[in-house]
Amino acid sequence: MEVKNPYTHHIIINALMRGGILPDEVCQNLSEWVKVGYNTCFDCLEGRSSLCHKPPVKKHLENIASFFGGDAAEHTFGCRGAQFAVMRTVAEFVIENEDYCPTIIIDPNSHYSTNIAAEMCGLVTIEPPHSGYPEYLYDPQDFQKKINEVKEREGKLPGLVVVTHADPYYGNIAPVEEIGRICEGYEVPMLVNAAYTGGLLPIDMRQMKVDFLTLSAHKSMMSVAPLGYVVTNHKWSKLLFATSEAKPAWSGRRFGKKIPNIFGCSIGGLPLISSMLSFDRVKERVKHWSEEMAKINKFIDDLEEIEGIMLLGQRPHQHHLLHFETPKFWEISQHHRKKGFFLAEEMIKRGIVGLHRGMAKHIKFSVYGLSPEEINKVKEAFYEIGKI
Amino acid sequence: MEVKNPYTHHIIINALMRGGILPDEVCQNLSEWVKVGYNTCFDCLEGRSSLCHKPPVKKHLENIASFFGGDAAEHTFGCRGAQFAVMRTVAEFVIENEDYCPTIIIDPNSHYSTNIAAEMCGLVTIEPPHSGYPEYLYDPQDFQKKINEVKEREGKLPGLVVVTHADPYYGNIAPVEEIGRICEGYEVPMLVNAAYTGGLLPIDMRQMKVDFLTLSAHKSMMSVAPLGYVVTNHKWSKLLFATSEAKPAWSGRRFGKKIPNIFGCSIGGLPLISSMLSFDRVKERVKHWSEEMAKINKFIDDLEEIEGIMLLGQRPHQHHLLHFETPKFWEISQHHRKKGFFLAEEMIKRGIVGLHRGMAKHIKFSVYGLSPEEINKVKEAFYEIGKI
Repeated sequence: MEVKNPYTHHIIINALMRGGILPDEVCQNLSEWVKVGYNTCFDCLEGRSSLCHKPPVKKHLENIASFFGGDAAEHTFGCRGAQFAVMRTVAEFVIENEDYCPTIIIDPNSHYSTNIAAEMCGLVTIEPPHSGYPEYLYDPQDFQKKINEVKEREGKLPGLVVVTHADPYYGNIAPVEEIGRICEGYEVPMLVNAAYTGGLLPIDMRQMKVDFLTLSAHKSMMSVAPLGYVVTNHKWSKLLFATSEAKPAWSGRRFGKKIPNIFGCSIGGLPLISSMLSFDRVKERVKHWSEEMAKINKFIDDLEEIEGIMLLGQRPHQHHLLHFETPKFWEISQHHRKKGFFLAEEMIKRGIVGLHRGMAKHIKFSVYGLSPEEINKVKEAFYEIGKI
Repeated sequence: MEVKNPYTHHIIINALMRGGILPDEVCQNLSEWVKVGYNTCFDCLEGRSSLCHKPPVKKHLENIASFFGGDAAEHTFGCRGAQFAVMRTVAEFVIENEDYCPTIIIDPNSHYSTNIAAEMCGLVTIEPPHSGYPEYLYDPQDFQKKINEVKEREGKLPGLVVVTHADPYYGNIAPVEEIGRICEGYEVPMLVNAAYTGGLLPIDMRQMKVDFLTLSAHKSMMSVAPLGYVVTNHKWSKLLFATSEAKPAWSGRRFGKKIPNIFGCSIGGLPLISSMLSFDRVKERVKHWSEEMAKINKFIDDLEEIEGIMLLGQRPHQHHLLHFETPKFWEISQHHRKKGFFLAEEMIKRGIVGLHRGMAKHIKFSVYGLSPEEINKVKEAFYEIGKI
């Protein structure tokens, strides 16, 4: 069975990957940790990684919470684990709280993991609309309408409103602050899923008026996968991070340090070590987000020089995930022997990896963090392929 | 914030770690994968890591299932994620099946993650007893009694019996085959948690008559954390690996390839790559389990030369996790200025890491996979410290 990485020398343009690429010096430092699976457990005294002082996981989580404007944070098995922890909290909250029902509002361009987490926790989901082609924008008023709709139909408020900060389809930045103000007014808890933004651009939960923030370290914080974080405020931390109440009767054991919403202890391991090592770099790079966006918007203009190519979503674009309509490439695919696969393969031939194989009519990718020379190479590759 | 591994040159005797230590050549091969978080996604076509052909995750999971005597496997966020997937399946099964109730039987030396998974899924747990000090053994008849007890009290069968193959307290090997035959007779589903055994000694689910096997790759399969596997048979795979039924009404989106019990897609990343790279070595080493056990039992005899030191659990021991009663070390701790911390620290001074800091009355550790010279060094260190 061959397990080889054929793309070690390629320019990576997969939008899932660009924010997660580790700095070289972090990769080097990881070599001293890689040999042992449970490498965060050497000096664990309390039986939960998030309480460890050596390596300083506890301190790191305090730093994470503070950096994102929250009061408390735990690391999780990816952002999906973070969203699951929130949904489980909400599922419990609505049982205990008669003013709320297990219906939650999720934005219509959410990542699938949001909907799966809701499904896992038995929550009913409803969606406000987006504005449709070609921008797919949200109107905060539609979230308000949905809250009212639930209130009228169920006689109770929705248990949660979820908004995806930058969505995975078009890379639109949602109007989280406006929606936050609405949720605050109704006293509906709100989660912002910042998997595609936290670690790339400045985020302050308090300013957003949200109760929960979920993050993906391997998507946007230069980390080994799988790792996420869930950040919350004082108000919600007690329920979100409640410790185990299990008490098996015969043995009388207790697991009082363990947090069920994060599987007792979320282990950490190499992903957590990598995130701790990368965090200073993450804090630094968010300061340069506007420079990145200038570069990216220039790239969008350049790419739209190709006949028929058009960016979908917000303009000017405010995020690095780019989704283009590419009729030109689709035409080529129609008479190419590799069909829709030609595009990703032509790019790979040119040393560029990350387009979804088989797609030619629409493409999604990112040039975040690439050097001007690399961005130019990507642009030229598209220009060349457009002439096939 | 200092994130340094102070134990790169130490002999590791932490029982959590010994089975998870990666072969040097795997560590080297990982360097080509470490830079990108989502490194298993380059050639993902279907949106779930377990369906990928490049790297060959799908094939690897078939190999895992077959190696452990099952029909289907998925990778998970650690063994805790695997147990959670099973518990969620059972929670759903008992709703649909009126012959079963949400009470499950868990052995009294289970790992905490088993109890936490049950708590997460709202299952009620009961425990058969163990035989108590100094062996803590299970009698299969006690499992049968508990099944009957549930049947009488609830008028229904328990939804699941969970047995920890080697328990985390004493390293006892449970009589899984006998319990398996009992469960088969009652048609009660059974899970064997092989976190401490799968990847160390030969395991065949079919022979054990069990429906679910959960594994920890970072505990016993030479892998980066966090990674686990859940293996099942044809009968249960449909429910355990059922795909998403979420259908958000407005957008009409579907997530038909995603498996909610494993968060849609369990990502994989570096832990999965490491497990794929290590798997041939894992398959090879289980053939040498009896040689390891001979070495380990010799070590037990040698250590018991120290006054008052006694192994708890099965004799001869059948697993590498060793739990000793150490009154001698406890006495020393009483008049040592470092109190109970002296023991772990004295060992670290001697280049040996892995005892729980603060513990001196009882100690748990492992010498699995160490060379005769290293085992000797561990023994001599204990001898020396016994003379302090």
